[in-house]
Amino acid sequence: MKLLLIHADYIEYETKKATKVAEPFEGKGERVEEVLVAFTAVEKGDNAEVAKAAAREIEEVARKVGAERIMIYPYAHLSSNLSSPDLAVELLKTIESSIEGFEVHRAPFGWYKAFKISCKGHPLSELSREIKGEDSEVTQALK
Amino acid sequence: MKLLLIHADYIEYETKKATKVAEPFEGKGERVEEVLVAFTAVEKGDNAEVAKAAAREIEEVARKVGAERIMIYPYAHLSSNLSSPDLAVELLKTIESSIEGFEVHRAPFGWYKAFKISCKGHPLSELSREIKGEDSEVTQALK
Ligand SMILES: [Mg+2]
Ligand SMILES: [Mg+2]
Repeated sequence: MKLLLIHADYIEYETKKATKVAEPFEGKGERVEEVLVAFTAVEKGDNAEVAKAAAREIEEVARKVGAERIMIYPYAHLSSNLSSPDLAVELLKTIESSIEGFEVHRAPFGWYKAFKISCKGHPLSELSREIKGEDSEVTQALK
Repeated sequence: MKLLLIHADYIEYETKKATKVAEPFEGKGERVEEVLVAFTAVEKGDNAEVAKAAAREIEEVARKVGAERIMIYPYAHLSSNLSSPDLAVELLKTIESSIEGFEVHRAPFGWYKAFKISCKGHPLSELSREIKGEDSEVTQALK
């Protein structure tokens, strides 16, 4: 799983068009202020354990930068090794439900969306993380 | 070389703090409207040939989406296989000077920057590309 974490004054998005793999979504979008945005790509081999580790990582950065809210924002462009859409939606929901101590928002998977973001620009306001499960780490170590 | 191409209503950035590898930069930032933003990570093994191929790719997408301007924006978070800072600056400048037929802007390498972007959200407004040189392709083929 790949994460790009941006500490933002705000993020605002609006759904424009569903793709073939869009999850059901009735809203049009929202604007969230003083937020850590977690752009997220779910990768092949990711599982619930990885999603929960991602939630811990996101919480830790949110605490460190003093963000009041978290937005989980699906972002396929962070990886060339994407999971199936079904698994992506499942694990994005797992991250959402695993985060504790913050107001959590989640943008829908599989929609073309317009968005506006304002990155604060301090040294911790843009961070990237790769989260791997135990199995993946073993595979890496055996290479 | 990794590219994330975003067709935006505007991008606006402001330098906040130089890192140790910052290129010299006297300005404070700028705002560009109706722009294709090319978030760019220069990777190990990239060379002038790759930078020129990236310029062609960026031009092609800019024409396709009808962008009037191009902003080259260094973005290390797109890769875990980054080149040296010196090579990155050199090749970002090569991309800048190789693009023809568009007003070209380039944000400075190695600075913490605040930025605001407004992604249009149409189906071609977010695209990613990986550009490899002939040598890298041969290496891939031999694997
Ligand atoms: Mg809008
Ligand atoms: Mg500002």
